[in-house]
Amino acid sequence: MTTTSIRITGVTVTPVAFTDPPLLNSVGVHEPFALRAIIEIATDAGLTGLGETYADEKHLAALRAAAAAIEGVDVYRTEEIYRRVQALHPAETLVSSGLVGQTAATDRVFSPFEVACLDIQGKAAGRPVADLLGGAVRDAVPFSAYLFYKWAEHPGADADDWGEALDPDGIVAQARRLVDGYGFTALKLKGGVFPPVQEIEAVRALRDAFPDHPLRLDPNAAWTPYTSVKVARQLDGVLEYLEDPTPGIDGMAEVARKAPMPLATNMCVVAFGHVPPAIRANAVQVILSDHHYWGGLRRSQLLAGICETFGLGLSMHSNSHLGVSLAAMVHLAAAVPNLTYACDTHWPWKSQDVVAGTPFTFRGGSLAVPSGAGLGVELDRDQLARLHEQYLACGLRNRDDTGYMSRVVPGYQRKQPRW
Amino acid sequence: MTTTSIRITGVTVTPVAFTDPPLLNSVGVHEPFALRAIIEIATDAGLTGLGETYADEKHLAALRAAAAAIEGVDVYRTEEIYRRVQALHPAETLVSSGLVGQTAATDRVFSPFEVACLDIQGKAAGRPVADLLGGAVRDAVPFSAYLFYKWAEHPGADADDWGEALDPDGIVAQARRLVDGYGFTALKLKGGVFPPVQEIEAVRALRDAFPDHPLRLDPNAAWTPYTSVKVARQLDGVLEYLEDPTPGIDGMAEVARKAPMPLATNMCVVAFGHVPPAIRANAVQVILSDHHYWGGLRRSQLLAGICETFGLGLSMHSNSHLGVSLAAMVHLAAAVPNLTYACDTHWPWKSQDVVAGTPFTFRGGSLAVPSGAGLGVELDRDQLARLHEQYLACGLRNRDDTGYMSRVVPGYQRKQPRW
Repeated sequence: MTTTSIRITGVTVTPVAFTDPPLLNSVGVHEPFALRAIIEIATDAGLTGLGETYADEKHLAALRAAAAAIEGVDVYRTEEIYRRVQALHPAETLVSSGLVGQTAATDRVFSPFEVACLDIQGKAAGRPVADLLGGAVRDAVPFSAYLFYKWAEHPGADADDWGEALDPDGIVAQARRLVDGYGFTALKLKGGVFPPVQEIEAVRALRDAFPDHPLRLDPNAAWTPYTSVKVARQLDGVLEYLEDPTPGIDGMAEVARKAPMPLATNMCVVAFGHVPPAIRANAVQVILSDHHYWGGLRRSQLLAGICETFGLGLSMHSNSHLGVSLAAMVHLAAAVPNLTYACDTHWPWKSQDVVAGTPFTFRGGSLAVPSGAGLGVELDRDQLARLHEQYLACGLRNRDDTGYMSRVVPGYQRKQPRW
Repeated sequence: MTTTSIRITGVTVTPVAFTDPPLLNSVGVHEPFALRAIIEIATDAGLTGLGETYADEKHLAALRAAAAAIEGVDVYRTEEIYRRVQALHPAETLVSSGLVGQTAATDRVFSPFEVACLDIQGKAAGRPVADLLGGAVRDAVPFSAYLFYKWAEHPGADADDWGEALDPDGIVAQARRLVDGYGFTALKLKGGVFPPVQEIEAVRALRDAFPDHPLRLDPNAAWTPYTSVKVARQLDGVLEYLEDPTPGIDGMAEVARKAPMPLATNMCVVAFGHVPPAIRANAVQVILSDHHYWGGLRRSQLLAGICETFGLGLSMHSNSHLGVSLAAMVHLAAAVPNLTYACDTHWPWKSQDVVAGTPFTFRGGSLAVPSGAGLGVELDRDQLARLHEQYLACGLRNRDDTGYMSRVVPGYQRKQPRW
């Protein structure tokens, strides 16, 4: 039987910006625009594939270097593409990814190219990407409602549609709207914004209003181990997991020894090199995977297999993202047997996108696995051009939640832990 | 873009027997015939796929039960197939695999079905199986010469072509023939047959005759930890690794603390459940993967990723096998970046096969990755029928090296450790 090749003939990297509400977190507030990069791979077979990733300046430069390095490679040879990306980065390079911490440069740069190659492989085979990962083990992927403290509006701008949420009532109202609109069956509160006592109150208010929804609290390492243990004990029986209460593997291990619920992380275990020390220290019980920095879909499956092997739980992390990333997340989550927690997504917080049509409709908080070939999403070229223009015009080039906050709240400083 | 389905319409399980020389090991001697089962999956798309596995009676029954359970499933949905096989086995069932030890029932039964499904996926996509695993990172896969103490002939039969090898001279002569004929660049001696002092002598003779070939010794857990350490120290600087000197994770850990070379295993870490305790105890430094009991090619990739993550070496184990298995081994080994040791294979010891033509030619001890679609091998139906007849006629139904040995050498008993 003969074989055919599908070689990469060109890669386009397009930075885009989309409007983002003033969502608060432990290091500041979301700026008016979130930045992403859209990767398009063209091949000599006429098939094209999509990927999506971060768009900070250094990352864009790394993406462009990688794009040049992988020309001519067959889209099935993703390990070769990985090696070429790796060759551009000194061994074991870790790069800061904002709140997420020190991720592996190779995995972070490789990811959107792998996703785009899988998109093409799926189109070539006439199969959804999930099938290239062993096939879906669930028809729909559950997501959690991602609750944020937020201002009513960006300073100087009109109030957004969501309004203010700065206290338990505001958080419960926000949760109500998300649950009513999307059917989410789990709730996650982004914390680390107010003193812990106020956030405990908000969690308790959520528990009262939604007695059957699993709850999570994520203060993004805003607390000392001492504070973390205190909060954990007060929320005993209320949280399904407590996410990154304190910085670092050692601190998390200290908290884990005393906290009554599992600890989850997308901050202290964000690269394969972090896994052995975290397991040795029993620092975390749940890892939040994220294909954007774990090296794409297959390396995220590796992480999943490691979690299964070592008895760790597995959930999924989200940054602000567009529809290409969501498609990749859904295919991956559908194919991973032990991804049993509802995934995070910022999806409801955005109102602009680059994908054509409305490929995603939440039912009961879940998304059906796209059934088309590849990722199952296509670009809307007008939208892509518009969001690229927006990127050029907005002036933002690197995410800086802290800088933005300090311009609004004079004297604001990043501090980890803060309480 | 539309998608197409490729559903399993039928599975054929054919036990076969092929002639095997009287190769000695720590629990006895190879019987005159080695048993294997050939799996053929038929689909509604007209494409067929091949797998190969063990053929002991219980395994055959499990294969047939699995075959019935997976009918109708799409060949891309290998995770669903895994779940169906898993449902046939109580959670965590471990099954004895002779010398290999306690392997996971699900992984062992699932493996040939996954390989056959990947064969079909590859044919459907017009790509070699390696491409479904991320693509080859090497053009050729290196194998080691697998040296055995052996009798000149099976009792009552004519001498085979290889002759006797029961002392250092015989082993060196055997190695010479294998190196001359195949170009092998690494040598592995199956030990545990004679008192350690004689096997040390054989290894030293190999070192003298082949000063540049990496050497391995595998006594299959024939030694106590005390003996193991003594031998290890005497072979300091001679072996690239010492394989399974003693039984069990605890025993291996005890030896590892004192042995000057890495310890390898395909006996105490042969299922994912063994990995965490082995890593905790630092019991082994190299794991020999084997897709036949690690759950197929993708789960073997998971093992590879675990080894990379935890800084363990990775090599590849072999049982007596035919060409379908060899093809799968080569595709897997080609696609795993950290499979950097020459793989084991019993290939040179057999003179019958079920695959058509001569798809494998060793050059410099290595095999090129088959470039055709799927596994790149096809059945020779006449040969398959002949080896199935041989299976029916030979009377062997379960491998029993110890029983065979005890009929030849009265009073022989399995003993682990023996020295």
